[in-house]
Amino acid sequence: MSLVTETPRGGRKATATRTVEWTAEILVGILDSTPGRVPDLFGDLTVSRRRVVAVDTKFHAIHGDRLRALLARYRIEHPDPVIVQGGERSKTRATVEQITAALEAFDVSRFGEPLLLFGGGVLHDVGGFAAAEYRRGITYRMFATTLVCAIDAGFALKVAISDPFKNRTGQYHPAEAMFTDPAWFRTLDHEQILDGTGEIIKWAVVEPSAPLFARFERHGPRAVAEGFSANDPDALAIMRGTIKGMMHELADNPYELVTERRSYIGHGMSMAFEPQVTHGQAVILDILLTLMIATRRGIVPPKLRDRIVTVIRACGLRLWHDVLDTDRIVSALADTMRHRHGKQSIPVPNGKLRTITYMNEITPDEVRQALDDLYATAHAA
Amino acid sequence: MSLVTETPRGGRKATATRTVEWTAEILVGILDSTPGRVPDLFGDLTVSRRRVVAVDTKFHAIHGDRLRALLARYRIEHPDPVIVQGGERSKTRATVEQITAALEAFDVSRFGEPLLLFGGGVLHDVGGFAAAEYRRGITYRMFATTLVCAIDAGFALKVAISDPFKNRTGQYHPAEAMFTDPAWFRTLDHEQILDGTGEIIKWAVVEPSAPLFARFERHGPRAVAEGFSANDPDALAIMRGTIKGMMHELADNPYELVTERRSYIGHGMSMAFEPQVTHGQAVILDILLTLMIATRRGIVPPKLRDRIVTVIRACGLRLWHDVLDTDRIVSALADTMRHRHGKQSIPVPNGKLRTITYMNEITPDEVRQALDDLYATAHAA
Repeated sequence: MSLVTETPRGGRKATATRTVEWTAEILVGILDSTPGRVPDLFGDLTVSRRRVVAVDTKFHAIHGDRLRALLARYRIEHPDPVIVQGGERSKTRATVEQITAALEAFDVSRFGEPLLLFGGGVLHDVGGFAAAEYRRGITYRMFATTLVCAIDAGFALKVAISDPFKNRTGQYHPAEAMFTDPAWFRTLDHEQILDGTGEIIKWAVVEPSAPLFARFERHGPRAVAEGFSANDPDALAIMRGTIKGMMHELADNPYELVTERRSYIGHGMSMAFEPQVTHGQAVILDILLTLMIATRRGIVPPKLRDRIVTVIRACGLRLWHDVLDTDRIVSALADTMRHRHGKQSIPVPNGKLRTITYMNEITPDEVRQALDDLYATAHAA
Repeated sequence: MSLVTETPRGGRKATATRTVEWTAEILVGILDSTPGRVPDLFGDLTVSRRRVVAVDTKFHAIHGDRLRALLARYRIEHPDPVIVQGGERSKTRATVEQITAALEAFDVSRFGEPLLLFGGGVLHDVGGFAAAEYRRGITYRMFATTLVCAIDAGFALKVAISDPFKNRTGQYHPAEAMFTDPAWFRTLDHEQILDGTGEIIKWAVVEPSAPLFARFERHGPRAVAEGFSANDPDALAIMRGTIKGMMHELADNPYELVTERRSYIGHGMSMAFEPQVTHGQAVILDILLTLMIATRRGIVPPKLRDRIVTVIRACGLRLWHDVLDTDRIVSALADTMRHRHGKQSIPVPNGKLRTITYMNEITPDEVRQALDDLYATAHAA
C-alpha cells in the first residue's frame, strides 16, 4: 500500500507501510534437532546456507561442541562464531561493531542469510541492533538461552545499546523467529532464573484475560525453585501464557506510539536500580513501589497488594535494596515522561486484576512514602 | 492492524504494520518566513518549541545569522547548533554521535521535538541516522541546501554512514518534511550543481510517465548554467518533476524489497568511482557505461544513447575519468548482487524511454568493451 498526493504548496506527500512478522516458540531438544524434524530452524536453506553465528560466552563454553555439530547437521556454512560476553556491560557500540565486522567479513547478503544468535537479552540487544543496521536491515533468528530472554526480550521488537545512556540508542527490529529450550535453563545461575521471574510476574499482574496470576500464585514458586527447566507442565504453561500475552501486547502496539501500555508496569522507575540489581529484580522493586503508591491512592486494595508481595517473597525475589532512593526515582520518572508524551503513565491493576489504571503526577512525597511503606513491608517479620 | 496466531508448534506468530508519511516541497524565501506565513515550518509548535538544530558548516557561514533570526521569529528554544562539515568524509559514526550527544544534552523527547537539519546529503545521512536511533527513533525535518539533496537524498528513506564501508550501515528513516529554497543554490560550487544534475538526469532517463527527459534536453543545460537558482520556470519544472517522480518511486517500494527498481540506474557500479568523483558524477559515469553495454546488447538503440550522451556533455558533466577500471567495476557489481537477491538487476531504458529492461550477468568482458566504447565516445572530437 502506498500513495503520493500533491501538497497544498505544490510539493508531494508520500505514505509507506511496512509489515513485519515474527514468531516465538518453545521447542524441546533444539541441540539434537535434525533438518528432517525442524527444517526451518535456521531459516530457508534453499535460498542460502551461509550464516554468521554469535554465541554468548557461557552458552558457548557449555554447549559449543553440540552447537557446532548442530550447524554441521544442517550443513550451515559459517565462519567461527562471534563470542559475546553476557551482562549489561556488553551493550556497547563496540560489541555491535564486533558483530558487524563478522557480517562484513563473511559478506552477508541483504536477503536470506539471517544472523543466528544463541544467548540472552544482551545478545538480543547487540545482535539485533547489528542486524537492524547492516545493509539497512537484515533478518536474525534468536535462540534464547536465558529465561528472561525466552519469555520477554527474545521476541520483543526493541533492541538497544546503553552506550553511553541505558537503552538510549536503539531500533525496533524483532527476530524473525525466536526459539527457546527449557533444558538450557539448567545451567543458569539462580540469579538469572530470578531475573526472568521478575518479567513473568510483571506480565502476570497485568495480563488482561488468562488466569496467569492465579496459576503463578499456585505454581510459580515451585517453578522458580526448579529453574523452569524441569518437565513441569505448570512451569511450561506459565512460560507459554507469558509469551502468548506479551505477543498480543507487542502486536497491538508494536512501535509504542500508544504510551499507555500494560507491560510498562515495572519499567517507569526500574532503570534507576540498574545495574546494581538485575533487570528483572529492578522491575520487581519498581512494581512493589508502584503498588505502595497505588494502595495509598486507593487504586489497589491492600489485599491485592499483599497477594502480590507474598508471591514475590515466595519466589525468593528481594523486596528491598539499598539502591532505592527518592532522588534517583524522581529523576527516572522525569526521563520516563520524555518517552511517554509528557506523562508518567504508570500502569497498575485497579482493584481487581485484569483492568488497569494509569497513574500520573506521582510526587516526590509519594515516592518517599512508598519507600517507607516498602521498607516496612520488607522488614516485617 | 495487528494479529497474533498460534503456530503449528504451539508458539505464537505476530504481525505488525507501521505507516510513515513524509513530504517534499520547494518553498521560496524560507529564511524570510514567519509563523504567520508558514506555520508548520518547524513542526507543531503547540506540542513543544524545543528543537536541536544541526547545520552544514558552509551554510552556517553564509546564512547563520539569518537562520538564528528565523528560529527566533518562531520562538524556537534551542542550544547552539551542531555544525557539521559537508563531504563524504563526515559520514562517520563520530559525526552521528556528535548529533546524538546534542540530543541527549538537550534531553529531547521521543515525540514532538523533531531534529532540524540544514544542509546537504551528508547531513541528511548522519542527522537522519542519529534521529533513527535516538530513543529508537525521533522525527527530523530536512532543509535541503544543495541541489542533490533537494531533488534526491533529502526526501529519500535511506540514511547511512560509510564507516568503515560506504553506506554499509544504515536505516530507512525519511525526514517527516523536506523543504528546499532554490535561492540557496546560488552559493553552491558549480561542482555541487553538477552533482545534483547527475541525479536529475538519472531520473529523467527512467521516468515512466512525464516528458521529463524531453524537457531536460531543451532546458537542462541552461538550468545547469544558472545553477537551478534563477527564477526560471523550466528549471523549477525540472526540479518539481524529479521530486514528483522520485516520490512515486520511493512510495511504491519504500524498503527496497523489490530489487528491480528504475532509480537503481547509475547505482550498480558508481560506488567504485567515489570518492574520487562526486556521487552525481559517479552516477553519470555508471549510466554511460550502462548505455554502452545495453547498446551492444541491442537494448538501447545508438540514437537514444547518443541523445543521452549529448545532453550529459552539454551540461558540462564528464564522460570519462581515470578512476574507471574493469576490476573495480566487476567488484562493485558483485557487491550490488548481494543487495539484490543475487542478481545485478541493472535498469536501462529499452529502446524508447519510459519502459525498462533489467540487465543481468554483465561479464568482465562486457565491462572492458564498455570502457573502450566510452573512452572513444568521450575523446571523439
